[in-house]
Amino acid sequence: MLEQLDLTKTMSKEDYKKRMDVLQPELSRLQRECKSAQIPVIIVFEGFGAAGKGYQISRLIQALDPRGFYVHSIGPESTEEMMHPFLWRFWTKLPSTTQIAIFDRSWYRKVLVDRFDGITNESRLINYYNDINSFERQLTDDGHVLIKLFLCIDQKEQKKRFKRLTNTKSSAWRVSEEDIQRNRDFEKYKAMNDEMLESTDTAYAPWTIIESMDRSFATVKIYTAVIEALKAALRRKAEKAATDTADVIDHAPTPASEYADDVLRTSSLQKVDLSLSLEKDEYKRELKWLQNRIADLHGEIYKRRIPVILGFEGWDAGGKGGAIKRLTEKMDPRGYRVHPTSAANDIEKVHHYLWRFWNNVPKDGHIAIFDRTWYGRVMVERIEGFCTREEWQRAYQEINEMEKQFVDHGAIVLKFWLQIDKDEQERRFKERMEIPEKQWKITDEDWRNREKWDEYEKAVDEMLVRTSTMAAPWIIVEGNNKYYARIKVLQTVVDAMEERLSR
Amino acid sequence: MLEQLDLTKTMSKEDYKKRMDVLQPELSRLQRECKSAQIPVIIVFEGFGAAGKGYQISRLIQALDPRGFYVHSIGPESTEEMMHPFLWRFWTKLPSTTQIAIFDRSWYRKVLVDRFDGITNESRLINYYNDINSFERQLTDDGHVLIKLFLCIDQKEQKKRFKRLTNTKSSAWRVSEEDIQRNRDFEKYKAMNDEMLESTDTAYAPWTIIESMDRSFATVKIYTAVIEALKAALRRKAEKAATDTADVIDHAPTPASEYADDVLRTSSLQKVDLSLSLEKDEYKRELKWLQNRIADLHGEIYKRRIPVILGFEGWDAGGKGGAIKRLTEKMDPRGYRVHPTSAANDIEKVHHYLWRFWNNVPKDGHIAIFDRTWYGRVMVERIEGFCTREEWQRAYQEINEMEKQFVDHGAIVLKFWLQIDKDEQERRFKERMEIPEKQWKITDEDWRNREKWDEYEKAVDEMLVRTSTMAAPWIIVEGNNKYYARIKVLQTVVDAMEERLSR
Repeated sequence: MLEQLDLTKTMSKEDYKKRMDVLQPELSRLQRECKSAQIPVIIVFEGFGAAGKGYQISRLIQALDPRGFYVHSIGPESTEEMMHPFLWRFWTKLPSTTQIAIFDRSWYRKVLVDRFDGITNESRLINYYNDINSFERQLTDDGHVLIKLFLCIDQKEQKKRFKRLTNTKSSAWRVSEEDIQRNRDFEKYKAMNDEMLESTDTAYAPWTIIESMDRSFATVKIYTAVIEALKAALRRKAEKAATDTADVIDHAPTPASEYADDVLRTSSLQKVDLSLSLEKDEYKRELKWLQNRIADLHGEIYKRRIPVILGFEGWDAGGKGGAIKRLTEKMDPRGYRVHPTSAANDIEKVHHYLWRFWNNVPKDGHIAIFDRTWYGRVMVERIEGFCTREEWQRAYQEINEMEKQFVDHGAIVLKFWLQIDKDEQERRFKERMEIPEKQWKITDEDWRNREKWDEYEKAVDEMLVRTSTMAAPWIIVEGNNKYYARIKVLQTVVDAMEERLSR
Repeated sequence: MLEQLDLTKTMSKEDYKKRMDVLQPELSRLQRECKSAQIPVIIVFEGFGAAGKGYQISRLIQALDPRGFYVHSIGPESTEEMMHPFLWRFWTKLPSTTQIAIFDRSWYRKVLVDRFDGITNESRLINYYNDINSFERQLTDDGHVLIKLFLCIDQKEQKKRFKRLTNTKSSAWRVSEEDIQRNRDFEKYKAMNDEMLESTDTAYAPWTIIESMDRSFATVKIYTAVIEALKAALRRKAEKAATDTADVIDHAPTPASEYADDVLRTSSLQKVDLSLSLEKDEYKRELKWLQNRIADLHGEIYKRRIPVILGFEGWDAGGKGGAIKRLTEKMDPRGYRVHPTSAANDIEKVHHYLWRFWNNVPKDGHIAIFDRTWYGRVMVERIEGFCTREEWQRAYQEINEMEKQFVDHGAIVLKFWLQIDKDEQERRFKERMEIPEKQWKITDEDWRNREKWDEYEKAVDEMLVRTSTMAAPWIIVEGNNKYYARIKVLQTVVDAMEERLSR
């Protein structure tokens, strides 16, 4: 989840002030409402050292009635705590139904800081994840609102902040040897954090990533995330009360979640450099080399019995077909299959939505290429209302679980998002209309989808963040220039195969 | 889950016939109804070898329209299947919304037979459990009905059946070397089965244990379990349709589940031998010895920093207080605490129902004794309607998870059920009314609870089966004779402590 982020986000003083003037009184009001609706609230602050957890907590509580919250600072386990089961110290700190409990670090300490520092028993890691997930499930089943915030900065920024703290006498104590070590081994520690995020990003207790390079931006995003979570909880409680014995499934469009606000959006999709391009000569040269290389690697992959799953998604006219064509051109046709995915047919409709993809899982040594994929659930099905909100919200976890099973079995799993801008799409649509042999490629539906560009963009943003895992990453392909895009796809496949074969 | 079973259950020919005359047409009807309601159904048959899976499947399908079901016989993985992720062969066999898929062995093969036979990678076991649980969660979330049946016989019966099969030429091939091996190592294989049952008995896909020593009994119980599951699914679907966008929580009393029928009940509670007793002399002698032994062991436990959690439940006037008194009489009071559990107070009411117990988890080396426990959730709260059906149904899993965390941390966890019969209770109630210094022990509520004896018995039955785990077992204490009961409690504690200290 930490791969597709745009950490450069900032917010101007004016914008910050304007937003906070609205957000602060709103949060105050919601705290009172949750109290009278008897909703216990838990806010977890996790993230990299010096990302500003303490600072952001102090900003957050400015809006809160001090009689209604506690802040728990979670350091290393005390002797007393070590003499109890690991979650005991958190169970005893749970809020009552009229309180907000804020955790500055939390039960995740065990699988992050303590793990890096070698305190946590590595072989028990999967048990800890299971314990954490069942803990959070038990809490949310019981009506607790669990808001999990992950504050993210990069290695360079962290180093700078550590230096600043160390240089001031009054704050030098705040930077430990271990902090410095984690900064040095940033990539290793980041991977632990990513694994943690992937293992615990559940439908009932999802993570919200807070880009924290700019403090004001982070504050606004935190306020917004907390406010939207409380609103959703109050709405659920009200609906439940209204229908008495019913647990309402919300069919309303996406709530004004953290992704609804353009400025606060999490993914780096908008930052993609679409000016990247390649000259025809260079393209031809590289294409030839890469295609030959893939043909060779394909043979190795077959001999080593490694299954390969390649998913292609992207805007209409984004160039999926062209990329797949170049990718497969010199492959042995007995060793790969291309599976085009369109609307579910009658047989597929009466099965689980993942069933048709499971049916096309390649066997060891074979390559399956999906032209559009299972991600339809969280894009077109979400936007067109072909499934309920509950259904697409839990799909992120379902999909991550499925892909993890592929990877656990030994598969290479890559997912390509072919990104173009709106103007380029229009140009390509028009071209398709004009050139007779391309007309079959364009339908009225394409134009209709185009009208919902912004909605799709938000859905894609959320999808990229929630489902880009270490084991099965998304690769965003800058697609305005087809030559560039195709080469990037082929090069990525070659790199992944070479990496695997070298193990 | 395999400990508290009564495997001696049988059914007379007449009773069998009478029941089947009702059950068969009912199942036929329900199959048609599920088909038209578009509910996909999965029935899993697991259990010990020669428990009669094949036979029972052929009996079950007699009631079914053959155009609406498939039977999948799951043997060892084929080469083709080994070249795919482990769940692939099951995903591809999922039923459509108008079908019933019956599995003769299933995805559990991996963690049972294949595990015993050394084919399964032991270090990946916890991953397999996770994969299975997420698979089943995805299916039930999607509206599949998942009925999991575990056919249970004992070692002796299995040996007999294997012999019978082997002695007949036409059936000798059905008994493999591995079958014989599993019979020889029955306890070891049973422990694997128990671990599997505990790890996968979830709120969304619970197991039903089928006592299969008597074939007719097993058939009736299977029919009943399938029928009740289909009925519940149809009811959920109808309620959902009625309230349109609502997922209804059922506040109705327990459905006529497999536990509702006295004859089909699973636990051995009714088989308890309440005539067991002890003479006063012997009691005194043993008591003295055990109390001294416990005092010694308590010191060892403290030195070795082992936490001990002892829970006491049982009928009113069952003798909990007396047993706890004898247990603690010679213990060092600095090393143990008794926590009486009554109705939740104001502070406890505004917290998660497990919160107050977590607060009293003993620290390493200490003993916590609970006079009534967290099991109130699935007994008094269930019966008195203090929580919803959804809440007590998911509590079995929540409680098992909690106790597992205690055990993982190193605790000894024992749960005592003090069993008396209804007459003995009346005798004790009357005695309490008559003897002035005992009058405080009896209230009107005790008499009211007594009227619900049968309801409580069913709840206790289900509780004992669902929460008796290998790590945290229930001990049923024959309690009509107080001397016998107290000695059994003390002896059990001594044994458990000695066993742990010897590791």
